Amino acid sequence: MASSDAAAAQAATPLLKDELDIVIPTIRNLDFLEMWRPFFQPYHLIIVQDGDPKKTIRVPEGFDYELYNRDDINRILGPRASCISFKDSACRCFGYMVSKKKYIYTIDDDCFVAKDPSGKDINALEQHIKNLLSPSTPFFFNTLYDPYRDGADFVRGYPFSLREGAPTAVSHGLWLNIPDYDAPTQLVKPLERNSRYVDAVMTIPKGTLFPMCGMNLAFDRDLIGPAMYFGLMGDGQPIGRYDDMWAGWCTKVITDHLGLGVKTGLPYIWHSKASNPFVNLKKEYNGIFWQEELIPFFQSASLPKEADTVQKCYLELAKQVRAKLGKVDGYFNKLADSMVTWIEAWDQLNPPKGAVATANGTAKSK
Amino acid sequence: MASSDAAAAQAATPLLKDELDIVIPTIRNLDFLEMWRPFFQPYHLIIVQDGDPKKTIRVPEGFDYELYNRDDINRILGPRASCISFKDSACRCFGYMVSKKKYIYTIDDDCFVAKDPSGKDINALEQHIKNLLSPSTPFFFNTLYDPYRDGADFVRGYPFSLREGAPTAVSHGLWLNIPDYDAPTQLVKPLERNSRYVDAVMTIPKGTLFPMCGMNLAFDRDLIGPAMYFGLMGDGQPIGRYDDMWAGWCTKVITDHLGLGVKTGLPYIWHSKASNPFVNLKKEYNGIFWQEELIPFFQSASLPKEADTVQKCYLELAKQVRAKLGKVDGYFNKLADSMVTWIEAWDQLNPPKGAVATANGTAKSK
Repeated sequence: MASSDAAAAQAATPLLKDELDIVIPTIRNLDFLEMWRPFFQPYHLIIVQDGDPKKTIRVPEGFDYELYNRDDINRILGPRASCISFKDSACRCFGYMVSKKKYIYTIDDDCFVAKDPSGKDINALEQHIKNLLSPSTPFFFNTLYDPYRDGADFVRGYPFSLREGAPTAVSHGLWLNIPDYDAPTQLVKPLERNSRYVDAVMTIPKGTLFPMCGMNLAFDRDLIGPAMYFGLMGDGQPIGRYDDMWAGWCTKVITDHLGLGVKTGLPYIWHSKASNPFVNLKKEYNGIFWQEELIPFFQSASLPKEADTVQKCYLELAKQVRAKLGKVDGYFNKLADSMVTWIEAWDQLNPPKGAVATANGTAKSK
Repeated sequence: MASSDAAAAQAATPLLKDELDIVIPTIRNLDFLEMWRPFFQPYHLIIVQDGDPKKTIRVPEGFDYELYNRDDINRILGPRASCISFKDSACRCFGYMVSKKKYIYTIDDDCFVAKDPSGKDINALEQHIKNLLSPSTPFFFNTLYDPYRDGADFVRGYPFSLREGAPTAVSHGLWLNIPDYDAPTQLVKPLERNSRYVDAVMTIPKGTLFPMCGMNLAFDRDLIGPAMYFGLMGDGQPIGRYDDMWAGWCTKVITDHLGLGVKTGLPYIWHSKASNPFVNLKKEYNGIFWQEELIPFFQSASLPKEADTVQKCYLELAKQVRAKLGKVDGYFNKLADSMVTWIEAWDQLNPPKGAVATANGTAKSK
């Protein structure tokens, strides 16, 4: 087969077509899907609308999608809908829960297709899939970055017993143009743009926390899905813009405990516009204080051996949040409750094998 | 001052000119120094000859250098010269000890000037100095790599209390063309070349070990010098090619304990030729087995609070090597002895402030 035929064949049967859902919080502009059409159209989209359910989100022709608004969430989860943030893009995690696929890719609607240094459009989804399908190396650092990439390998001094790596649970992609800065940094550096294309994928080592951004993120639902709770943010909550961070810290503690890997680096998307730093400061204000307590908490969090599933790990973490962070602010008691509710809701929509879900999502044992 | 004048002035007074020594093991070809002349000539060179002392190493005109052969090492260190490897480039660490400067850059004689993607010669030394003069971030991962580089910063979710970073003790540079592979990988992939220029510098997180290569390495002697012992390799020893690895593992445990940082990534050098994989296999054979025990040893090594200097840390580590690795092979008892001798020799040549060294390097208190 000539190489152009091969490329065409590959384009016709995109990677993991039937095993991956794309989860998008409210789409505020039609350009977004038009720009991504060549890459996203073969996949199923789950759109989770964060605002007024009466407003209609228009999805261009040709996309296969399902759309959930607040009324749908309330109907499907009943009282457990309380764990899903209201009027905040953190509600996207409902999409993770309602999906039936093995892999999730989530992206914000202000993220467009970036170009690599040669000027070629970057197929972000394809790179995420490559990241997820190849192992991670959380137990030892490889100085030539991802040893499973073409043209790379493990360097001298890398123990052979560790070269099988660990299953990859998370692929964290980056952003060209507008970097993901907090409000104080946005205010101080309003003109800073990220123009550095770093051609690397790497594993975040075991025991190391990182700031996980939800703008351009893929993960293996089977391996880590129940840890990807984006918390309580937005309307009625004292904090915003920490949804993905919270999920990242919980996820990293759990992947470390379960021997799974988290990768960061490629692919880049083009982050088109900076959000308003004044609005962001208001949302982040409490988080900026609280994270000084949260980081030591997560750095020292330890899970018992018996916690051998993501759900068990997450419930244990909820217990520790209540015990140790409740004194930081009452919000964390509420959050701990919601973490438990989230797992209940997850299990409701994703009953263990041998049970079936009813049409409205309530689990019923066979 | 016009900017071209400023650039000229900067070129005339290279960074840290009086504070950095370049340490090179035996130079086998004159091209090496000729190629590096624009970058190295302003600095002082310390050449440590690993082979027959009767052979003469020719250094091209115009370089400021001192050269030590085995006879010099024996004369200066006396019986303590036993800790310096014989007929192996591991002897370079004698140069770290005999230097009186704050910074060391060490490079192999088969490493040439690399080009960046724009085709410009890379000033490796300048990048190492930038790495060493800016802080590291060992306590939390920054997804946009080195936050202190131009055009970069800490991303959202990075705790503000950690943004001062930690002093950088080590800058580990990489290699284009021939990657630093072990003998088995060389044998399996004889044609693999590293052509990926990754435009990043990053901190290796606290608690994470890495394979430190001595080909293109800079460090702060004041902060970490006494840990940069390249062990017992080569003639009369059952192992080779683990000199830099050993130094890297010890160094990382100690920098982690003392709150210092280790960076890796830029700068690249051009590694011109692969060493013979059959010869390498013979040298590495034992190391490949032993490293499976060494990594868990270093991963679990813990230093007491009282170990508040590099020397104290290193002597404590020597004790643990003897206690825990002696049973792996008798070699490690000999190595533990040499680690102690190395520190004695270091203190002999680098007497504490308030003491003076005599001409032949023996310390004498004031």
